[in-house]
Amino acid sequence: MKCLSHSYYMHIALELAKKASPLVLPNPRVGSVIVKNGTIIGKGYHQKYGEKHAEVLAIEDAIKNGHSLKNSTMYVSLEPCCHFGKQPPCTDAIIKSGIKKVVVATKDPNPLVNGKGIQILKQHGIKVVEGILEKEAESVNKEFFKYMKTGIPYIAIKVAQSIDGKIAKPSGERFIFNTEDENVFVHSLRQKYMATMVSVNTVISDNPILNARYGQIVRQPIRVVLDSKLRIPLESNIVKTSDEYSTYTVCSENVNDTQKIEFLSQKGIKIIFAKSSEDGHLDLLDALSKLAQQKIVSVLVEGGSFLNFSLLKQRIADYWYSLIFNVFIGGQNTKGVVGAEGFEQFFPKLANTKVTTFKNSTIIEGEISYV
Amino acid sequence: MKCLSHSYYMHIALELAKKASPLVLPNPRVGSVIVKNGTIIGKGYHQKYGEKHAEVLAIEDAIKNGHSLKNSTMYVSLEPCCHFGKQPPCTDAIIKSGIKKVVVATKDPNPLVNGKGIQILKQHGIKVVEGILEKEAESVNKEFFKYMKTGIPYIAIKVAQSIDGKIAKPSGERFIFNTEDENVFVHSLRQKYMATMVSVNTVISDNPILNARYGQIVRQPIRVVLDSKLRIPLESNIVKTSDEYSTYTVCSENVNDTQKIEFLSQKGIKIIFAKSSEDGHLDLLDALSKLAQQKIVSVLVEGGSFLNFSLLKQRIADYWYSLIFNVFIGGQNTKGVVGAEGFEQFFPKLANTKVTTFKNSTIIEGEISYV
Repeated sequence: MKCLSHSYYMHIALELAKKASPLVLPNPRVGSVIVKNGTIIGKGYHQKYGEKHAEVLAIEDAIKNGHSLKNSTMYVSLEPCCHFGKQPPCTDAIIKSGIKKVVVATKDPNPLVNGKGIQILKQHGIKVVEGILEKEAESVNKEFFKYMKTGIPYIAIKVAQSIDGKIAKPSGERFIFNTEDENVFVHSLRQKYMATMVSVNTVISDNPILNARYGQIVRQPIRVVLDSKLRIPLESNIVKTSDEYSTYTVCSENVNDTQKIEFLSQKGIKIIFAKSSEDGHLDLLDALSKLAQQKIVSVLVEGGSFLNFSLLKQRIADYWYSLIFNVFIGGQNTKGVVGAEGFEQFFPKLANTKVTTFKNSTIIEGEISYV
Repeated sequence: MKCLSHSYYMHIALELAKKASPLVLPNPRVGSVIVKNGTIIGKGYHQKYGEKHAEVLAIEDAIKNGHSLKNSTMYVSLEPCCHFGKQPPCTDAIIKSGIKKVVVATKDPNPLVNGKGIQILKQHGIKVVEGILEKEAESVNKEFFKYMKTGIPYIAIKVAQSIDGKIAKPSGERFIFNTEDENVFVHSLRQKYMATMVSVNTVISDNPILNARYGQIVRQPIRVVLDSKLRIPLESNIVKTSDEYSTYTVCSENVNDTQKIEFLSQKGIKIIFAKSSEDGHLDLLDALSKLAQQKIVSVLVEGGSFLNFSLLKQRIADYWYSLIFNVFIGGQNTKGVVGAEGFEQFFPKLANTKVTTFKNSTIIEGEISYV
């Protein structure tokens, strides 16, 4: 019998978790392996929201391969669920299977689980080991952990900019940056994050569709428009395509244009009412927590130098993508990536940056750090 | 006897040329090999302004190694000089040496040579082959070629910027970007280019010394201040250190503050008078052509969002370095990398970009393209 460490098998479970496509959203990515006498006898990872979880797939895999699960050890990158969701509780399947020990990387931050899964396993005589590669496991599902712990979605911001930090022409007219490579990149991000969000100004000026069209398409993002005064044009591409793609408009609680609300609702657009802040803009935290209540785990923000500033200023933004194109726009008054009054004393930073180069651009991405 | 192509040996001559440090400035970088019966019998490259040229060093190397130069072939990456400068003409040395054939990558664009060197060799019965790896040879000395062909220096612009393209705090206060890695990078550029240039506004706001201090130091740049109204503060670091480092101030022909001119001259600062443009700023082309007359082959421009814009707008700038730091400054009115009115119809681009990553920054550099 080989004696490999818990981390060895947990690492394999994490690699399985990473294979999951954005089809699992809003669920986390979870991988599991079952080990008996030092040999991996079953493997599985959660593949699609609403379908079987990693633990059940690993158990089924072992059985399919003719193994008995008796006295085996399960490694799973997230605490097994113990509640009925779209699927029955994984704890039930584990208890029935004969598995003797469960090694868990990290507790599930979901308040419906959060330790209860582990408790139930223990109550049924199953030995549980916790905290193996815990940090790595949280990192694989950093969006899900932020969402569960804070009650607002994980926020990534994406900007397309000139090398000098401009996002439009000096006149305010739209500048078309993207070419093929960058389109494929951006449209993969639209799938990676649960929703794509813009301010209504972007809808008015650029009239985007905000769906995923380039590269490999596995899912379409939910589209969210921050639209405090409900100014979204009825003839905009977003409204026109709202029967095809799930769409939310977040407006101020003070909006009472019942006719427009009625029209948009009939078009299939879900209208969310959020508080206004003192300056008449939407209260971002309230808007985002209401989106979180709709199970929107993560949001890709695409546009608006004022919105970018607000998300940084309020320390809500988690991740940043700058698509820096090899072109100069210039102009003291031209709209830049981060607008409004800017930072004078405290400056948000990018950490753990990753740089990707394309023919016409360089992408700098990283975690936004407020320390 | 090995029969290798002209390009093979010329490639070696070019690799030798590239070994030259900025100590050759304002001379071009030149390398030479001498071949006899398929064997390289001598090598040399120009190492320091005022000292021996590549051809003479290669000849001396062959002789030192006990070879006769009779019937040998010289490969040289730039046409041999035929005039007395700091050194006697290389053509004389070649003619005396017994070399039978000279293979030249490219003509020397210097009007004092420009084909005359080749002509003299031919008149003395030496066979000359031209144009071997011509493009590569011009590229090794692109600064020198631009300077000779246009009568103005090669212009590289370097900016330190936040990820969102800002170069100062919203208040206008200086933002200190650089850390060790970037300092070494910038101070190597200050040596690579003949001069470092700023506008007087940068002298007033940042009070830089503009010398080379970090990393390996082989030479100090000439410092140039564009100072149309001769506003340079007498107590500035530039003026205080003008006995240590060669310094130029370019002001408008209309300046008649004889007392200040006298003071600065006594401090060792060379004052150049240039035309003013209609908007009261210096006529950049006139200023730069006057700097070229001072044998300033290449200039590294360090700062001023207005100056950067003017150099791009007038299509004078040749090369660009953006040191993009992993920090956000933001602000609609904060000074950006490229200021003034910006570009609305035609947009300069970066070509042949190179990306370097440091811990706290990403450097994007490339040739500025106006097509």
